[in-house]
Amino acid sequence: MGKLLEGMQENAAKLQEELASKTFSVKSGGGLIELTLNGNGEVIDLNIDDELLSDKDSLQILLIGAINDANKMVQQNQQNSALSMFGGLK
Amino acid sequence: MGKLLEGMQENAAKLQEELASKTFSVKSGGGLIELTLNGNGEVIDLNIDDELLSDKDSLQILLIGAINDANKMVQQNQQNSALSMFGGLK
Repeated sequence: MGKLLEGMQENAAKLQEELASKTFSVKSGGGLIELTLNGNGEVIDLNIDDELLSDKDSLQILLIGAINDANKMVQQNQQNSALSMFGGLK
Repeated sequence: MGKLLEGMQENAAKLQEELASKTFSVKSGGGLIELTLNGNGEVIDLNIDDELLSDKDSLQILLIGAINDANKMVQQNQQNSALSMFGGLK
């Protein structure tokens, strides 16, 4: 395998490791929902306030918002990390 | 801009459109939770069974599982779609 390709694979592995160790928390509904993901986009924690258990409509809407916000945050970070690593700006 | 680059950009735009029109549904807890995403990873629907509102621990655990399963499904589909489109196998 070429040196260049080897280097790229190493960088990709390093990137994945780095992302796994990062965490992103998103709050929704003024903190009634808190969703935490790692940099690879895996949900590692979810806290729902008891108050929401008596209002399923709000619960569902706030959850959808939290998941979408969190996914966007993770994607943006992945793009930035990949750019800075492969671009050698890091 | 080169013809090749132009073609790639067109393909990428087509891919994004195609993904937005796809939907993926994940059920968790034997159907107590149903989560629907489009192919770009955006949550478009979430249904929680009333039964879960009286068991917050299960609710949170099942939601985490559903979100992670759905995200994996979407990522796999994105990779396959990109490969088949850019590889010209489509």
